Amino acid sequence: MKSKAKKVNKALDDAIPLQNPIKIHEAMRYSLLAGGKRVRPILCLAACELVGGDEAVAIPVACAIEMIHTMSLIHDDLPCMDNDDLRRGKPTSHKAFDEATAILAGDSLLSLSFEHVAAETENVSASRIVRAIAEMGSAVGSEGLVAGQVVDLCSEGKELSLDELEYIHVHKTSKLLEAAVVCGAIMGGGDDIEIERLRKYARFIGLLFQVVDDILDVTKSSEELGKTAGKDLVSDKATYPKLMGLEKTKEFVGELVGKAMEELSCFDALRAAPLYHLADYIAYRQN
Amino acid sequence: MKSKAKKVNKALDDAIPLQNPIKIHEAMRYSLLAGGKRVRPILCLAACELVGGDEAVAIPVACAIEMIHTMSLIHDDLPCMDNDDLRRGKPTSHKAFDEATAILAGDSLLSLSFEHVAAETENVSASRIVRAIAEMGSAVGSEGLVAGQVVDLCSEGKELSLDELEYIHVHKTSKLLEAAVVCGAIMGGGDDIEIERLRKYARFIGLLFQVVDDILDVTKSSEELGKTAGKDLVSDKATYPKLMGLEKTKEFVGELVGKAMEELSCFDALRAAPLYHLADYIAYRQN
Repeated sequence: MKSKAKKVNKALDDAIPLQNPIKIHEAMRYSLLAGGKRVRPILCLAACELVGGDEAVAIPVACAIEMIHTMSLIHDDLPCMDNDDLRRGKPTSHKAFDEATAILAGDSLLSLSFEHVAAETENVSASRIVRAIAEMGSAVGSEGLVAGQVVDLCSEGKELSLDELEYIHVHKTSKLLEAAVVCGAIMGGGDDIEIERLRKYARFIGLLFQVVDDILDVTKSSEELGKTAGKDLVSDKATYPKLMGLEKTKEFVGELVGKAMEELSCFDALRAAPLYHLADYIAYRQN
Repeated sequence: MKSKAKKVNKALDDAIPLQNPIKIHEAMRYSLLAGGKRVRPILCLAACELVGGDEAVAIPVACAIEMIHTMSLIHDDLPCMDNDDLRRGKPTSHKAFDEATAILAGDSLLSLSFEHVAAETENVSASRIVRAIAEMGSAVGSEGLVAGQVVDLCSEGKELSLDELEYIHVHKTSKLLEAAVVCGAIMGGGDDIEIERLRKYARFIGLLFQVVDDILDVTKSSEELGKTAGKDLVSDKATYPKLMGLEKTKEFVGELVGKAMEELSCFDALRAAPLYHLADYIAYRQN
């Protein structure tokens, strides 16, 4: 996992050279290279290898998924959205630069993500590249990340049901994790059955990811998280611990890990080891 | 040209059904269907036909280019950018909705543009679709629209040289027109020589487009333009009339039309007629 993260970091660094206009490339690099956990690209590469592909064929799409993720963080942090000052332990993009630059850096990362996959993917058939691009798009737009953020913004201060909460998480978190895994499997040459099993795995992982985020928000400090802690309580946001209680939420984590791992049972256990490990890592991470 | 605009409007309407979450789809449709001139998609379809392709194969990419154009308008109009209240004769997106929705509607349109080409293009080889997507990406990102907007924002209130002014226009306007024409030719089955001739044509058209915009800004009223007129003067922006004088700028228009048309001379005159006409239309439009 560490070697995968290193490769991704190197590839991300190479993907955006510091060229003119300097300011926008600085802003793109500032957020993209701020040292995230790289969970999405690692999942992407692991899925590629699980279906028998060489890791290298999925590097461009793994980077693209991380660019999309970074774009969504930059835009979600804006004053007119979640108005967050701290992200990954550093000032958010609009604080380090300014609002216009933050918006444009996000736009540019989003556009580059698609361009990067189209221009840089090698040794994969064009039809698989097209399929991956459609998958990425559906994870971002008004049926993906954007849908989640819109509903999230509309529901602040309202009482949410568990179903509504799940809608937000599925769209804000699961969809992109799903795209990461599915695109990795597409690039790796996976067949339709393998891709659909991995899609289900990713959905459980996605939900898991958010449930754990909610737990961390109420149990950890800002310093430990590298972002503002306790924010959900202050803003009166619906969270799993609030709706289910902390103990039940922790039980739910165990249940989701089990379901995710079940989807891997049809694959070779050795090859699937990184994805088992990732499920564990996401469930029991401390920040 | 009118029948092409009609087809594009119908295809754009179909591309974004009014589904849940309603608000974001309303915002996307509000700006996308606000009745622009559809110059870019029409150019795209005309280029497709010029190289012998059926118009239908370029409809998805023509729509995608218009989605990108609309996204750039929505984001450029934001308070932290150009802070414009009026666009195409209607309140801008952040005025009609709110800032967060405007930003997300732009993000969603940008993402959908790539997805739409990947998912909806029919009867074109996957390798041509991939090539068109890379072309679209390079027109938007930090070497395209975004680069132009960043430099434009940085230069407000500064004295600009003609070279700097041209940099802004090439990136804010020409690149996307170029992508429209080139993507149309790619989808239509054009060969590399045809594509490069059309790329040059598009560059002249792009510059022409902006020069005429500058003229209209100083010679027309807001009502005639459907957007705030005289804004460049108020904000002390560099424009061609300011740098060259109005008469010289009008001569420059004639020169650019001639150069654009010269690039079409290698094509069948009858087939090229729509592109000749478009050059004329862009040069002598009144809004």
